[in-house]
Amino acid sequence: MCGIIGYVGREEAAPILLNGLRRLEYRGYDSAGVAVYHPEDGLTVVKTKGRIQNLADQVEARGGIRGTLGLGHTRWATHGEPSDVNSHPHLSENGRIAVVHNGIIENYAEIKEFLQSRGVHFVSQTDTEVVAQLLEFYYDGNILDAVTKVLHRIRGAYALGVLCADCPDRLIAARKDSPLILGYGDGFHFMASDVTAVIQYTRDVCYLDDGEIAEITADNVWVYDAYLRPVEKQLHRVDWEISAAEKGGYEHFMLKEIMEQPKAFHDTVSPRIREGKVVLDELTFTPEYLRNLEKIYVIACGSSYHVGMAAKYTLEKLLRKPVEVTLASEFRYCDPIVTERTLALVISQSGETIDTLAAMREAKRLGARVLSIVNVVGSTIARESDDVLYTWAGPEIAVATTKAYSTQLALIYLIGLSFAETLGTITPQAYDAIVDELRRIPEKLTEILNHRERIQYLASIYFNHPSVFFIGRNVDYAVGLEGSLKLKEISYLHSEAYAAGELKHGTISLIEPGTLVVALASYAPLFEKTMSNVVEVKSRGADVLGLTTADLEADMASVVNHTLTVPQTHPMLLPSLDVVPMQLFAYYVALMHGCDIDKPRNLAKSVTVE
Amino acid sequence: MCGIIGYVGREEAAPILLNGLRRLEYRGYDSAGVAVYHPEDGLTVVKTKGRIQNLADQVEARGGIRGTLGLGHTRWATHGEPSDVNSHPHLSENGRIAVVHNGIIENYAEIKEFLQSRGVHFVSQTDTEVVAQLLEFYYDGNILDAVTKVLHRIRGAYALGVLCADCPDRLIAARKDSPLILGYGDGFHFMASDVTAVIQYTRDVCYLDDGEIAEITADNVWVYDAYLRPVEKQLHRVDWEISAAEKGGYEHFMLKEIMEQPKAFHDTVSPRIREGKVVLDELTFTPEYLRNLEKIYVIACGSSYHVGMAAKYTLEKLLRKPVEVTLASEFRYCDPIVTERTLALVISQSGETIDTLAAMREAKRLGARVLSIVNVVGSTIARESDDVLYTWAGPEIAVATTKAYSTQLALIYLIGLSFAETLGTITPQAYDAIVDELRRIPEKLTEILNHRERIQYLASIYFNHPSVFFIGRNVDYAVGLEGSLKLKEISYLHSEAYAAGELKHGTISLIEPGTLVVALASYAPLFEKTMSNVVEVKSRGADVLGLTTADLEADMASVVNHTLTVPQTHPMLLPSLDVVPMQLFAYYVALMHGCDIDKPRNLAKSVTVE
Repeated sequence: MCGIIGYVGREEAAPILLNGLRRLEYRGYDSAGVAVYHPEDGLTVVKTKGRIQNLADQVEARGGIRGTLGLGHTRWATHGEPSDVNSHPHLSENGRIAVVHNGIIENYAEIKEFLQSRGVHFVSQTDTEVVAQLLEFYYDGNILDAVTKVLHRIRGAYALGVLCADCPDRLIAARKDSPLILGYGDGFHFMASDVTAVIQYTRDVCYLDDGEIAEITADNVWVYDAYLRPVEKQLHRVDWEISAAEKGGYEHFMLKEIMEQPKAFHDTVSPRIREGKVVLDELTFTPEYLRNLEKIYVIACGSSYHVGMAAKYTLEKLLRKPVEVTLASEFRYCDPIVTERTLALVISQSGETIDTLAAMREAKRLGARVLSIVNVVGSTIARESDDVLYTWAGPEIAVATTKAYSTQLALIYLIGLSFAETLGTITPQAYDAIVDELRRIPEKLTEILNHRERIQYLASIYFNHPSVFFIGRNVDYAVGLEGSLKLKEISYLHSEAYAAGELKHGTISLIEPGTLVVALASYAPLFEKTMSNVVEVKSRGADVLGLTTADLEADMASVVNHTLTVPQTHPMLLPSLDVVPMQLFAYYVALMHGCDIDKPRNLAKSVTVE
Repeated sequence: MCGIIGYVGREEAAPILLNGLRRLEYRGYDSAGVAVYHPEDGLTVVKTKGRIQNLADQVEARGGIRGTLGLGHTRWATHGEPSDVNSHPHLSENGRIAVVHNGIIENYAEIKEFLQSRGVHFVSQTDTEVVAQLLEFYYDGNILDAVTKVLHRIRGAYALGVLCADCPDRLIAARKDSPLILGYGDGFHFMASDVTAVIQYTRDVCYLDDGEIAEITADNVWVYDAYLRPVEKQLHRVDWEISAAEKGGYEHFMLKEIMEQPKAFHDTVSPRIREGKVVLDELTFTPEYLRNLEKIYVIACGSSYHVGMAAKYTLEKLLRKPVEVTLASEFRYCDPIVTERTLALVISQSGETIDTLAAMREAKRLGARVLSIVNVVGSTIARESDDVLYTWAGPEIAVATTKAYSTQLALIYLIGLSFAETLGTITPQAYDAIVDELRRIPEKLTEILNHRERIQYLASIYFNHPSVFFIGRNVDYAVGLEGSLKLKEISYLHSEAYAAGELKHGTISLIEPGTLVVALASYAPLFEKTMSNVVEVKSRGADVLGLTTADLEADMASVVNHTLTVPQTHPMLLPSLDVVPMQLFAYYVALMHGCDIDKPRNLAKSVTVE
């Protein structure tokens, strides 16, 4: 998740921008940069891969940068690996326009092609550079006008900061779907991704709304709508502490990241659906390769392994090819049966998980082709894979993964749909139905999140149960595994997930009055079967918290103690909805236990030991 | 496990025999019968499939059977399904010799062929009938002499009771590897499988040793060795209660069945190895079928599923064919990819597990061929399978399976070896090495069982740990799953098994001072890897109980709190040894918690609901 800061005032801009960038470090980044304008020096850009201290050192090495307005940026790579040249700010070819950007320009490829056909030279692999170049293309003396034209041309999510050397008293800010605030001071103004970047200088801010454009100088702020009609903004007085501000007002990064899932899902899926079709430009699979494919090994650990469990149900159904989900730490040493017709589907948030990396190398050595699903651009797993699909979840700070899981799952659907279309194993009707529903997942996620108070309430009822079982069948089982792991990770409760039909073959002996059973029964075809297992545990005294879809709630409510619901969707996509109440339940239970939610004991965010 | 009783005295024999059979009911049986001799009526045999009450009803219906000597038998089918005709006693063709038998005659097929070539007609499919027919063949006026000749001819495990109408004052008893006792009274004597059958009439018994033959009349008992040299036997006074006697002197059936594993393993394996080769007469697979085989689905529940987990490692290594282990309750509804080149390997102790049966039917419907591993002859799964291999574990009374697991695993090895030889995927050297080691497993099991006091001691140290994790890699992981389930089933402790490398991807957050981790590291190639995971949990305060082979014990002991060892064997066969300390640990922990070990709460022996 990139961070933006812009300053215009009477002080030296560079130290203020660097200060602001340090405040944005918590968001995660892989590179950083600043652009500052001075009448004598023109537009100076310093940017570098790595820590902000590197950037500060470079600025210091050149004796500072003069100038009282400028832009700063921390980058989290999406398009183009982390590198100096891919860092922001980006300049237009003539060096007169600097741009910083947070988000994704979905149609950057076609714009780039258009500009290249007009002779424009690009220096980076980023989607952001097209904004700078397009601004130069449209610029005819009025930078605000040029920005408006660019905004009409680009598609996607963005917060933008623009500095033009020809209008050296002002910055332009614009947003759609990515947050951007303005900070008000006496003789200075800011733009920033969030208030933490400016809170040291001012607590008076306004929040730009989607489609709004702002023009700021040292003494004035003008805000317009997309048609440049003036908009009256209300100032807010920020009374948060910085630590709260970092978390967007949430108590923990985990909750913040849970809440970000609609956006993360949208960011990951939406750019890859064009005119109702899944388009995975990044992949290089030929139809022939897919037809000859004999087996898919999903290789992963932890929550990514649980994505694999859902993937097995999804991909086998869609592709009619065998899918085996295997723990990375086991795969490597089990003498797996791999041929050149084996696809290794490798899933890792960090792209550095050592078990997964080692297993992937073993799969490659044995002849498999590797497709990885990774959140961190340019990570080792991404680099060593034959093909990569990035989740565009943004950096995940909390140790317990939430939005990475959701976006990994989203990519599984896209892979399944894309391959199935190529293989002809899906009807156009089914394809369209799933694509339609995929687009609606973000709003349904929002609906679930908006009702999180009920989950908090239920957590307050059940948090003291010492022993918890999650049961479900089919995709509900896959989600149960993840729900159980979430609870274990952050609340330290002993919980275990079971295929609902399996409990009675042994483990049901642990069920006694007061045991909590979380029963997932959202998958309608097996609702009755799962409910009969619920009756078994209920009759042995368990307290049952049930999860199902809204339409089945009444049937479930008569049997269980409490219900949670998710909106209806295509059965294949249910895990994307089901997992959110499970995450929230784990979160609130841990909260009530007073656990250190973002940094649970014993756990590291990225496991780089075997 | 069949039960034998024989009476010779002055009372009416039939009511006494029926009484004794009722005492033997706990051993499990599917049919029962009696043979009684009376000078006027000759030899009368009544036998029937089903309950002993059926038999008693039939005896009563014919107005009783006269006579003061006779044999009784409860049968647990091994060769030939449960039926009236396969029930014991078996008669020779001339109707003059009756035989009851407990055990397996390994070379019955060749003897039967020999006798048939001499014109003898057989009426049953049992191995026992060959004993009766062979006795008639050798009989020339001295039944003791005939018995001796037969014993020299047959191979296998047996306890035999013989009644010959031509010597109507005596019974002959003989044993090898199957228990047999003699009961002494005033004017009567008994033979029986165990003391429970006779305890109502006498508490003075002697135990026949392997190879011994006894001749008993109302007033005398003579015991001989295999060469008919007289043996002096010592009388024992039984002071057990009947309930203890039923359990062979053990406190619980579970412990009795754990202790029976060397024999059960031997009984299952030994008859199927001839001249160093695995011979699975029961199977009808052609080499062509095996070559074309694309995939093996192992379908099972509970402990049988854990056998499947070990089977995956074993069979994939031996056959280089993909093996997928699937929970029966999930298989049925997951739209599995099955073709006519799919083999469904179905595992069930009872042969009646409804989830497994339903999944098996689904696999058949989809075109798979079914090979089942079942303990109960003639059960539904056995009947509906294309091929069956029976475990010869005898009836299992305790709900928590032990000897069924071990014998199922034994058959996996035999299947793997047999198929691999056909497919040419094993070298003769490797084949011979595994067969050699297979034969030595029973004695190694005995060695482990002889040292069970150490496990009891360790259980006394650790039984109060509220939370237990089992970790291991590869086959050790498979055994960990079973160890954890055993503990859960009977002690109700919350425990969970993990692939050792996976723990750190989430669940390690539950490890705190006082958590018990049972670390299985018997598989030498991964010993170091597993030990590094042990160090991780140790450094977070866990108490670690380690299991490894004798040669690695020193390396392990320096890291863990306590060690358990098993003898070295071929790496593939390790689960057969490793599982026993896990069973005993679970048993002793449950014992110290005062749990109802043989009938844990909520559990049924054979799960016939979904």
